[in-house]
Amino acid sequence: MAKNRQAKDDSGRFAYEGLDRIMHEKARLGVLTSLVAHPKGLAFADLKRLCGLTDGNLSRHLQVLQEAELVEVLKGYDQNRPQTTLKITSSGRRRFLNYLTVLERIVRDAADASQSEASFAANPARA
Amino acid sequence: MAKNRQAKDDSGRFAYEGLDRIMHEKARLGVLTSLVAHPKGLAFADLKRLCGLTDGNLSRHLQVLQEAELVEVLKGYDQNRPQTTLKITSSGRRRFLNYLTVLERIVRDAADASQSEASFAANPARA
Repeated sequence: MAKNRQAKDDSGRFAYEGLDRIMHEKARLGVLTSLVAHPKGLAFADLKRLCGLTDGNLSRHLQVLQEAELVEVLKGYDQNRPQTTLKITSSGRRRFLNYLTVLERIVRDAADASQSEASFAANPARA
Repeated sequence: MAKNRQAKDDSGRFAYEGLDRIMHEKARLGVLTSLVAHPKGLAFADLKRLCGLTDGNLSRHLQVLQEAELVEVLKGYDQNRPQTTLKITSSGRRRFLNYLTVLERIVRDAADASQSEASFAANPARA
């Protein structure tokens, strides 16, 4: 019984619920990191270059991010030429920073785990 | 010209090529972190509990991880009852640790970015 109770204490220990699927996608992670670094916004062409994406791919991901209200799309002009500027929203910024605390936890969990292998190996769960 | 050349230096700066799509999936990230923490292996039931997954979900993700040779599935007995033990492979361990260095870079990039907003805001790329 005591063993069972103790075993249940670690339920979901590695579930990482806060890893929002919209933000966790590889390309969107790059887009959000770029935009967090440029809070006044980035032109479409600059964002595309920073993220190494094609026009089509970037457009598709921006649509997902816009629907989730993480990013806003501003239409304007640069020297009389139409220009699209992308900006992270304030709630997007807050949600992305929360997401990053989960990523940080994974990195820490795994680093702790791989560094303390000796102690785990001496007292593994079932092996 | 000088501006263009400078702008091109940051191509793919936020592309994060090393984010392997197999390992980056939320549930599989939990499975791999659990297994890195238990190098001698974990019983299916223990892994399921740690990751907060259903039998079906865990089986599906284990199949993907096994096909990618990240995880091995060992069939054995525990007190005469058949038991499946899951273990990270040695190449899986190495590949997962490489993946984690990319995650670490994202966390650092975003932390740097959000902390140095004042300087970015004073000199943004295009805004």
